Amino acid sequence: MVSEKFVFTFGDDRNEGRAGLTSLLGGKGAHLAEMSSIGIPVPPGFTLTTEVCAAFNASGGAFSDAVREQVATALLQVGAGLGRRFGDEQAPLLVSVRSGAPVSMPGMMDTVLNLGLNDATVEALATVSGDARFAWDSYRRFIQMYASVVMGVHGEVFEHVLDAAREAAGVEHDNELDVDQLRGVVAAFRSAVHDAAGADVPQDAEEQLWGAIAAVFNSWTSERAVVYRRHHDISDTLGTAVTVQAMVFGNAGEDCATGVAFTRDPATGRREIYGEFLRNAQGEDVVAGIRTPHPISVDGAAIGGTDAELTLERAMPEAYADLVRTSELLERHYADAQDLEFTVQHGKLWLLQTRAAKRTAAAALQMAVDMTDEGMISSSDALLRVDASSLDQLLHPSFDPDAAVTVLGTGLPASPGAASGRIALDAQTAVRMAAEAAEGEHVLLVRHETSPEDIEGMIAARGILTARGGMTSHAAVVARGMGTTCVAGLGALQIDYEQRTIQLGGHTLREGDFLSIDGATGRVLEGQVPTVPPRMIGAWERFMGWADERRDLQVWANADSPKDAAQARELGAEGIGLCRTEHMFFDDDRIMIFRRMILARTDESRSTALDALLPMQRSDFHDIFAAMDGLPVTIRLLDPPLHEFLPHTKEGIAELASASGQTIAEISSVIEDLRETNPMLGHRGCRLGITYPGIYGMQARAIAEAAIDAREAGIDARPEIMIPLVGTGRELELLANHVRAVANGVATERGIDPALVPIRIGTMIEVPRACTCADEIAPFADFFSFGTNDLTQLTYGYSRDDAGVFLSAYTQRGVLAHDPFQSIDEQGVGALMHIAKERGRSIKPNLKLGICGEHGGDPTSITFCHELGLDYVSCSPFRVPIARLAAAQAAVRAERARTEAAMRRRAPGASGPDRPLEPLLS
Amino acid sequence: MVSEKFVFTFGDDRNEGRAGLTSLLGGKGAHLAEMSSIGIPVPPGFTLTTEVCAAFNASGGAFSDAVREQVATALLQVGAGLGRRFGDEQAPLLVSVRSGAPVSMPGMMDTVLNLGLNDATVEALATVSGDARFAWDSYRRFIQMYASVVMGVHGEVFEHVLDAAREAAGVEHDNELDVDQLRGVVAAFRSAVHDAAGADVPQDAEEQLWGAIAAVFNSWTSERAVVYRRHHDISDTLGTAVTVQAMVFGNAGEDCATGVAFTRDPATGRREIYGEFLRNAQGEDVVAGIRTPHPISVDGAAIGGTDAELTLERAMPEAYADLVRTSELLERHYADAQDLEFTVQHGKLWLLQTRAAKRTAAAALQMAVDMTDEGMISSSDALLRVDASSLDQLLHPSFDPDAAVTVLGTGLPASPGAASGRIALDAQTAVRMAAEAAEGEHVLLVRHETSPEDIEGMIAARGILTARGGMTSHAAVVARGMGTTCVAGLGALQIDYEQRTIQLGGHTLREGDFLSIDGATGRVLEGQVPTVPPRMIGAWERFMGWADERRDLQVWANADSPKDAAQARELGAEGIGLCRTEHMFFDDDRIMIFRRMILARTDESRSTALDALLPMQRSDFHDIFAAMDGLPVTIRLLDPPLHEFLPHTKEGIAELASASGQTIAEISSVIEDLRETNPMLGHRGCRLGITYPGIYGMQARAIAEAAIDAREAGIDARPEIMIPLVGTGRELELLANHVRAVANGVATERGIDPALVPIRIGTMIEVPRACTCADEIAPFADFFSFGTNDLTQLTYGYSRDDAGVFLSAYTQRGVLAHDPFQSIDEQGVGALMHIAKERGRSIKPNLKLGICGEHGGDPTSITFCHELGLDYVSCSPFRVPIARLAAAQAAVRAERARTEAAMRRRAPGASGPDRPLEPLLS
Repeated sequence: MVSEKFVFTFGDDRNEGRAGLTSLLGGKGAHLAEMSSIGIPVPPGFTLTTEVCAAFNASGGAFSDAVREQVATALLQVGAGLGRRFGDEQAPLLVSVRSGAPVSMPGMMDTVLNLGLNDATVEALATVSGDARFAWDSYRRFIQMYASVVMGVHGEVFEHVLDAAREAAGVEHDNELDVDQLRGVVAAFRSAVHDAAGADVPQDAEEQLWGAIAAVFNSWTSERAVVYRRHHDISDTLGTAVTVQAMVFGNAGEDCATGVAFTRDPATGRREIYGEFLRNAQGEDVVAGIRTPHPISVDGAAIGGTDAELTLERAMPEAYADLVRTSELLERHYADAQDLEFTVQHGKLWLLQTRAAKRTAAAALQMAVDMTDEGMISSSDALLRVDASSLDQLLHPSFDPDAAVTVLGTGLPASPGAASGRIALDAQTAVRMAAEAAEGEHVLLVRHETSPEDIEGMIAARGILTARGGMTSHAAVVARGMGTTCVAGLGALQIDYEQRTIQLGGHTLREGDFLSIDGATGRVLEGQVPTVPPRMIGAWERFMGWADERRDLQVWANADSPKDAAQARELGAEGIGLCRTEHMFFDDDRIMIFRRMILARTDESRSTALDALLPMQRSDFHDIFAAMDGLPVTIRLLDPPLHEFLPHTKEGIAELASASGQTIAEISSVIEDLRETNPMLGHRGCRLGITYPGIYGMQARAIAEAAIDAREAGIDARPEIMIPLVGTGRELELLANHVRAVANGVATERGIDPALVPIRIGTMIEVPRACTCADEIAPFADFFSFGTNDLTQLTYGYSRDDAGVFLSAYTQRGVLAHDPFQSIDEQGVGALMHIAKERGRSIKPNLKLGICGEHGGDPTSITFCHELGLDYVSCSPFRVPIARLAAAQAAVRAERARTEAAMRRRAPGASGPDRPLEPLLS
Repeated sequence: MVSEKFVFTFGDDRNEGRAGLTSLLGGKGAHLAEMSSIGIPVPPGFTLTTEVCAAFNASGGAFSDAVREQVATALLQVGAGLGRRFGDEQAPLLVSVRSGAPVSMPGMMDTVLNLGLNDATVEALATVSGDARFAWDSYRRFIQMYASVVMGVHGEVFEHVLDAAREAAGVEHDNELDVDQLRGVVAAFRSAVHDAAGADVPQDAEEQLWGAIAAVFNSWTSERAVVYRRHHDISDTLGTAVTVQAMVFGNAGEDCATGVAFTRDPATGRREIYGEFLRNAQGEDVVAGIRTPHPISVDGAAIGGTDAELTLERAMPEAYADLVRTSELLERHYADAQDLEFTVQHGKLWLLQTRAAKRTAAAALQMAVDMTDEGMISSSDALLRVDASSLDQLLHPSFDPDAAVTVLGTGLPASPGAASGRIALDAQTAVRMAAEAAEGEHVLLVRHETSPEDIEGMIAARGILTARGGMTSHAAVVARGMGTTCVAGLGALQIDYEQRTIQLGGHTLREGDFLSIDGATGRVLEGQVPTVPPRMIGAWERFMGWADERRDLQVWANADSPKDAAQARELGAEGIGLCRTEHMFFDDDRIMIFRRMILARTDESRSTALDALLPMQRSDFHDIFAAMDGLPVTIRLLDPPLHEFLPHTKEGIAELASASGQTIAEISSVIEDLRETNPMLGHRGCRLGITYPGIYGMQARAIAEAAIDAREAGIDARPEIMIPLVGTGRELELLANHVRAVANGVATERGIDPALVPIRIGTMIEVPRACTCADEIAPFADFFSFGTNDLTQLTYGYSRDDAGVFLSAYTQRGVLAHDPFQSIDEQGVGALMHIAKERGRSIKPNLKLGICGEHGGDPTSITFCHELGLDYVSCSPFRVPIARLAAAQAAVRAERARTEAAMRRRAPGASGPDRPLEPLLS
């Protein structure tokens, strides 16, 4: 429904907009009206609504008469208040035109200043202001901005002219050019524009204005903007608003200035105004970096080590005092830290923009806690003020932001942190190099991809870099689990294992050379870059305490070793949701025994090998139970296909032959027999459990014995056994019976009532069939744990190990809004999870439901898990704090949505009944 | 609900049962009562119901007093009618005890005859019958059967005794032993039983009876029976009935006989009684094969070339006439061909069993058409009388049933037919050997598995045998498509490619040796076994015409070549549902061009390669359009990952290097880059279409040009383009736009209105996400075609190429009721199909829905497709007749179910309202 009102004015007590109208007026327009209405000085102006944008684009680029009339009326009003008139050759009104979408969106046209200037009005401006240099400086700025922003002339064109002018004048900065030199610049600009664009910057003020407005609206549908919106899931129908505002001038003399300010320090959260400004300048000078801006406050200068006399506080103390007052007023009004744009014209402060300030994770947390203490916001508000994902920054070291770096390439930020070390091209070398490394030196393992047999090298490495695989590839999952920095899927990386070199970004590096990887951004940097330690700030404990009070979801961790379990517990984990047992078989002293088990040709020799593994597994489990005393530990029985445990190289096969007493031909034949075309879809998980019952039997025995040992040592062990890859009820029935029989047998052997060492048995829900047939599986399960990694692979038919190639093309081209391995695909995977929940709980209303895929540490996915009604999420140890906060945020948001819905229902003016929640499946 | 009536009598005008009570009385008991009630002579008896079985098993093996009382009463009644009494030492009643489940079930206890005999009653029987030899022959039979069937004594024990007795007596057959010798046999049997079982056959008649009844009930839960039921999806709760029946004796002299008869010839369907009998014998003699039975009729003797005087028709003409009358009566009564067991006692005919006759496919079809012509059944009934799958037998050659064969192993019956040929161990050798083969000699391609690059060898081979892969492996799918015999997944087959030998069933064979494979049974036979051609019988056309009249589903075919398309059309296909385009690239003259396209490093060189392929594809499509003139042809754009087209051997890489002008290292590097861990889940299908738009562009152009060429040649081409592996709406949107733009461009180039050559565009629904998100995809689709091969792989997480190992274990152990690649898994895959249908048609109510996975040729799955409301099924050409019949059967059954439901609704006594159809998903 398009209203009849297309233009909303602000300033001069004609504030037709307000903060709540951002979808109509854009952030900029809405907040200018809001500021003006609370008495903050804002140059008068008006905003064309997003509906005008929609009509403009729908009509192929036309403005209706109504729009033109309302703009003309508003322009007259704005001019009238200032005693000027747009296009008037005596007292010209100059305006800025700025875009302002409902959500901030790079890739769109931003700003054109000084509209209304032409050969005639520039002289009038000179006369009125009594400053010809200022007038011509403004005119050259207008031509430069209009031509580049509206007409698409490349910025270099203007730089060349200015370079030449400065050289001719023998000055360093543009603001040293005098009025005649600026007249020459204007003439040269105009000729350059004509050459570049085949047209002139219009002289007619109306033409300038509508050209700029049209450029803003057109930029909404520019390719860059469309791609950005698709990538960030922003609707194409939102549209952008345009704000037209009377100019105030920071470049009208030495009592003028322009700057940006934050109401609190965006890096630390310190409660003190923070910002930069330039005297006698317009806004783009601050951004362009041609002149170096000065700190606003004396404190700021002290921190930066610059001259206190050059601060706004000292140089323009009254304007500074106004700015501080305005800053405090805005922060109270918005109840959040703000990012301001201001201009001082002949000593008077004008505000040109306010918006919520971007901030570091540390600052966000500090501000949220401080503002709660200041009574400005509630602790629930505080929880929503910190981006859960950003907590990573507080838990891992990062590269020194002041270090000079050379970026060789950018891969996927697979596991956070910053790591430098010597390149090792295989696991054995990594282990050796780590053992031989000098004090303070580390190793980076660099591979096409990693596999389970690389585990010792991965442990020895400070960081892991792979050429293939995505966010849930083996390298990424294992690295996150261990808290090791990892950059994955760097397609440009070429490795020559023979020559022991890598090629990246045009550089060739040898094994042993230094390299650095940034797991937070995916960047790979040349050499050894210094790091800074994580900054755990004082407010942390209180903030996380609030999160724990508010959340409904429990947060468990995925941990495979006692060390990881202890780490997870320290970070707040309330249980282990996934303890993978296969990693335990890759230790040097175990892999040979496990291989003998695989190679066994008789039940006896298989049993002998399993018997040898039993005490090792028992001891693993015992130590994890000890670390998690009193908390549940969910142990997944063996999952990967057996061939993953066999050697792949000639040397490995020869070694196994001599160790096992079988011939190389025999072993090669077993390897050939076990080879699979699609191992992901092969003989693994519970399929192995059924065909090789001895393996799960040994594992069940080890768990039961460890639980009893722990109990006798006074430890409250709470084992839960998880059967992987179940797709039919019968699989779980058979295996649950098998496992329970073994466990009960152990208790009986030890003379203990099995009821005293209860073992819960459940399954991963990770194949689509387990979802549609959850009612067939539930009778045999104490719990379901969604294995969303595999479930996503199977729902889409994407292999994590192979999808990198097209997934990046897919997300770039908007085929996928996001990588479904990072955040749960709610329409596909989520729909199946919903079916599984409904059907599972139709059989067992109290069936415990959790998630142990990588999504368990992703805030968006955690919100979905909360809405779905899961009992817990389980994630890698270092994501536990993120999950705790994300779970709290989901709970707060859900409660607020309920409250709002209830209020809407009670409101008498509510239009019609609430729509019922649409069922996920009809 | 357990009733109070546990025993139902029959015979002597006390027929408490009837044919409709098979679930309570088993087939045997129900039909004995039915026969008796229509006046056919049946020895009197009674049946213990399946409810008694359930109570027996639930109570751990007890009989209630009520059961014991009702049995006692019934026994008295039976005896009273005959003037005898069970266990009486003067006039003993002898009975048989036979199991009879509601569905015929091997693996259960079958029959014990002559119960009631003991050391006393045998003498009474001798006296009463006046034939001591007969009495002692019956007694020795009783001991033998009771001990082996009820007590589990091995049959060999008795063979040894009889061998010794015959040797001592100097006779050849048991019926030549005299009464004293038989006494000795009885004594020896009793002692042997005691030795073997540690117990004696009971002397007490009551004990004998209850022992036999308990053995029947216990056999219901025997492991063999349980496995059988799980395998055939028969409920464990059905239970079995027990029939106790007064003995009549075929062994009481030369005017006695026993035999089996079919009311029509079960091999050909010929309308004439057919069967065998033995004089002076009991039933087991006919089965055991100790004596050779004689044909019943003179005609039968003429066919078998045996002596007409030995037939029942000549030897006992009155009994024969009775049998013919009874046969005609039963056939009319049951309106179907029957399989009878009869006994003639002193010239009088008694019927012991009737059931629907098993028959060959040819006989079934002939009988169905004949009986319709005879007015016995309707044409709809006729359609239900032929097992759709069995039509295969009528379309392919089979091995001569009279040939002596040595079975070396049994794999999966992957593609029907019978083939003998010389072993070739690779595709090149197969091509060479086929070219060099002598007249009438053929080649069998024997491989671990096949891949697309083997295609020429597969075409050259008469049959294909693989060690790996299931019913939908590459070998199986391609072989079925070509109508080539294939046995797949023969795990016991070992191939040594170096030595050029195979090992199977303890035999070592060399390349070039003869071998035979039976695609109907999966058997692999030694040497060259002669075959007999398929028998297309006269009734075929009329029968298939009835099927076409009744079915709602259209039947299309999967065909990749003009030849296959023509074959499919001849077999009744109404369109091509899947034309795979990738096979077209494997021809010798094309593969190198396709490989150059893959290796191209510039857009130009890729375009050049695609331009070279264009005319070849255009000609392929033109010829298929010509073959399918007037019918739709659904062409699937390229689906497999690119690495499938690259060489895998050193020689192949070297050849490609010299052909392409690139180095071996460069090519190896491309191969390494394209290598995938799980190709099934990799860079294929529409993912390639999006990342390599040139490929689909070339294919779309070839289709459009071929369609226009065809139109100009007067051919009504109806192309439908199918985009594979779509999982998101955006994929189909992008590619449908791309394809449509290319097609419209071609029309414009050719000066034709694009509307005159319409191309429908749709997608395969083969990833689970496409099902849950069908409403997101439907806006861009003219049709959905369920690709149930991949959908099954992804729903279960089973790779067709790898699952063989555990799938056979799963089906054997009842984890899966059937192989989900053979018949659609209705709970899992079917539930997803249902969601896809609902969501797709919620957007487009007339969206055309089909299936092109291998399930499209499986009768059970076709029934499901009919119920789901699909528009068509598409299957390999040779399965088209099967699908036509299965579709008709589904329609007939569904209509009957509706009629019955309507009648139930109208019936005043209906108990309560009909239950609504349960929704598949809540």
